[in-house]
Amino acid sequence: MQSGAELVVLGLDPGSRVTGYGFVRERSGVLELMAAGVVRTGWDTDFCRRLGTIYTAVAKLIGQHAPVEAAVENVFVSKNAGTALKLGQARGAALAACSVAGLPVFSYEPTIIKKSLVGTGRAEKSQVAFMVGRVLACRETFAVDATDALAAAVCHLNQRRLTRLCGAR
Amino acid sequence: MQSGAELVVLGLDPGSRVTGYGFVRERSGVLELMAAGVVRTGWDTDFCRRLGTIYTAVAKLIGQHAPVEAAVENVFVSKNAGTALKLGQARGAALAACSVAGLPVFSYEPTIIKKSLVGTGRAEKSQVAFMVGRVLACRETFAVDATDALAAAVCHLNQRRLTRLCGAR
Repeated sequence: MQSGAELVVLGLDPGSRVTGYGFVRERSGVLELMAAGVVRTGWDTDFCRRLGTIYTAVAKLIGQHAPVEAAVENVFVSKNAGTALKLGQARGAALAACSVAGLPVFSYEPTIIKKSLVGTGRAEKSQVAFMVGRVLACRETFAVDATDALAAAVCHLNQRRLTRLCGAR
Repeated sequence: MQSGAELVVLGLDPGSRVTGYGFVRERSGVLELMAAGVVRTGWDTDFCRRLGTIYTAVAKLIGQHAPVEAAVENVFVSKNAGTALKLGQARGAALAACSVAGLPVFSYEPTIIKKSLVGTGRAEKSQVAFMVGRVLACRETFAVDATDALAAAVCHLNQRRLTRLCGAR
């Protein structure tokens, strides 16, 4: 990316019941919130229909906001294989929508996202949320999943800037 | 479904590297193979691109063969959460394609599929493959994943017939 150019990144936090999303634009080095929210798939609907809802919603959002890259948090799955399978399916539907739209997807460890926003990999959720608001200069309070999605997007833009400054990109 | 009517079912066996598929048509109570094969996503490509490939391929196949329902085997995931997450994402991409196309997806336990084809829930893979060929009156040898996909489709059509005969549908 050239300095001064505009870059829109989609952050995602996929889940089978709630999928958070956030679009962040970088223009001349300044980050700006474009849109954020959650896709709710309902509690009592068929699981496969939920996957279709996630795919369709993410594809529609990509069409509306035209991001060029996507960022997502790596998932911690050491506890329960059943939960991992469920979460994996939601994640698969969301990331397939990114891929079909031609977006490269970048995954970050939770500690990297926290460090990028707060300065420490052991930061609390509330600290991350506070810094997301601060960096994007907005006072709005978002749902937890939307905040996590925005954090992934901001982290990705920070990483991009860092890589650029280091001359590797 | 009315007796004598035509019904096309898509069987799926999703995986992150190989996704098996099989289309089976029931016409006047007779099962017929329409198409079967595998979608290969490559070994060295980006994981998210694989999800996009799975989604696009399954969506295209649905468009070509116009099934009205889909069947898939339930996954056994008690061992490894990391594997479950990976498999879940591939499954999510494939099932999202079914859902977006408006197909209801029916899941069956592996033992139910084996019992439906071979008569015992403890049947070997080779016995299931033999019966798939027998039921569909074809001598062709398919890849393992395609056979598993066809087995799910045949199982679903058997279950449908059984339910109809029992007067519940």
